[in-house]
Amino acid sequence: MAPRRKKIYEGKAKILYEGTEPGTLIQYFKDDATAFNAQKKAVIEGKGVLNNRLSEFFMNGLTNIGVPNHFIRRINMREQLIRQVEIIPLEVIVRNFAAGSIAKRLGMEEGTALPRPIVEYSYKNDELGDPFVSEEYVIAFGWATQQDLDDIVSLALRVNDFLSGVFFGVGIKLVDFKIEIGRVWDGDFMRLIVADEISPDSCRLWDVKSGQKLDKDVFRRDLGNLTDAYTEVARRLGLMPANTAGLTKPTLIN
Amino acid sequence: MAPRRKKIYEGKAKILYEGTEPGTLIQYFKDDATAFNAQKKAVIEGKGVLNNRLSEFFMNGLTNIGVPNHFIRRINMREQLIRQVEIIPLEVIVRNFAAGSIAKRLGMEEGTALPRPIVEYSYKNDELGDPFVSEEYVIAFGWATQQDLDDIVSLALRVNDFLSGVFFGVGIKLVDFKIEIGRVWDGDFMRLIVADEISPDSCRLWDVKSGQKLDKDVFRRDLGNLTDAYTEVARRLGLMPANTAGLTKPTLIN
Repeated sequence: MAPRRKKIYEGKAKILYEGTEPGTLIQYFKDDATAFNAQKKAVIEGKGVLNNRLSEFFMNGLTNIGVPNHFIRRINMREQLIRQVEIIPLEVIVRNFAAGSIAKRLGMEEGTALPRPIVEYSYKNDELGDPFVSEEYVIAFGWATQQDLDDIVSLALRVNDFLSGVFFGVGIKLVDFKIEIGRVWDGDFMRLIVADEISPDSCRLWDVKSGQKLDKDVFRRDLGNLTDAYTEVARRLGLMPANTAGLTKPTLIN
Repeated sequence: MAPRRKKIYEGKAKILYEGTEPGTLIQYFKDDATAFNAQKKAVIEGKGVLNNRLSEFFMNGLTNIGVPNHFIRRINMREQLIRQVEIIPLEVIVRNFAAGSIAKRLGMEEGTALPRPIVEYSYKNDELGDPFVSEEYVIAFGWATQQDLDDIVSLALRVNDFLSGVFFGVGIKLVDFKIEIGRVWDGDFMRLIVADEISPDSCRLWDVKSGQKLDKDVFRRDLGNLTDAYTEVARRLGLMPANTAGLTKPTLIN
């Protein structure tokens, strides 16, 4: 790791350090896995390295199609330089198929296709367990404005279109995913950009043929080795040298 | 009770019978009280009579200010004639102060003033426990359209303004309330109107000075005699003869 830097924030799976230039941060990916609001915890060797590389890959793809996001460049195996944002305290979730909380809330079988993609919000608050909230709550409590929400839905649906395509191309179904959104200022002009990470920690990814889960549900539901699942995603996306697929300590293609 | 009629639907607190003319129903108010999705049950003598009269009172008030609703006329102590509607499967909840589920979900103290009135929705489904849903869910699953929701919010906020005024005038704080909305057709023209009931079963009502609860929470939380609480509401609104206040079997002014 680089010389000691000022720690800005430590979350469950990542640490933010002061960046190398004004308006930037260094995002460090830990190997820690948590689920059910951190009631379940483990260290999954190699997860941070995989997520750092995968999030770089997806964010670069978004940049290519003009979806603004916080990613600047990868620094090393576990760190990336990102733009500092004022984070909106919402988990923005896009669902294509029912799974997890929506399946439970509405009594739907997991895997049921939704009538259309649904964008929903959880209020980011660990003590409350990141509760599901409605658009009315978001606006009334000032977490975002109606204009923000309109912009967030547009961003979220573009990310959904792009990621659905990426995964469709490698035989993976994008069931749902979560992003976070941050505010940045270009002079007086405020813009919303995609922040946090995009990785198998933040998506539900099912193999199209077998239905096998290739995401954090492997950990949540004790379905096998999480690193193997994430490595398989990286392998399909061409981020692993072919001869190291299946190794416990993944070697990523730079 | 009137001669045997065809029962259309029986809910937890009311029964709907075939009406006396096409496009109408008879709404019968039972004394049954339920809470926590019917896990807690009781028969509260006189509750149906009080709610029939109170709902008549509020619906007539709404008619006076031009808020369309299903009420036609009261038939007897427990029955009223209503317009048949195609019910939208949502509980439309308007909150002025935090109480109940929002207080729990967001970790707020009960009684905290909300930044502005919040309109929220629960999907009417007993098996699922009437789950809280977002606007996105409502639209995606086709329970209502965006245009419907815009109209529902307008109706709900007008009802809130009116009821807040009614209760303010008699020293009661309207914490929150629930209505249902139905579709009716005037020829080819579809309209949304207020349906179901408005009563202390469907509102949270706190005495302004003492904070005493005058609503179904008295039953939910075992705070005393429910009929006494509802009778007090009716008394303040001038619906009880003064000399019978406090009687267990309320005598209502016709």
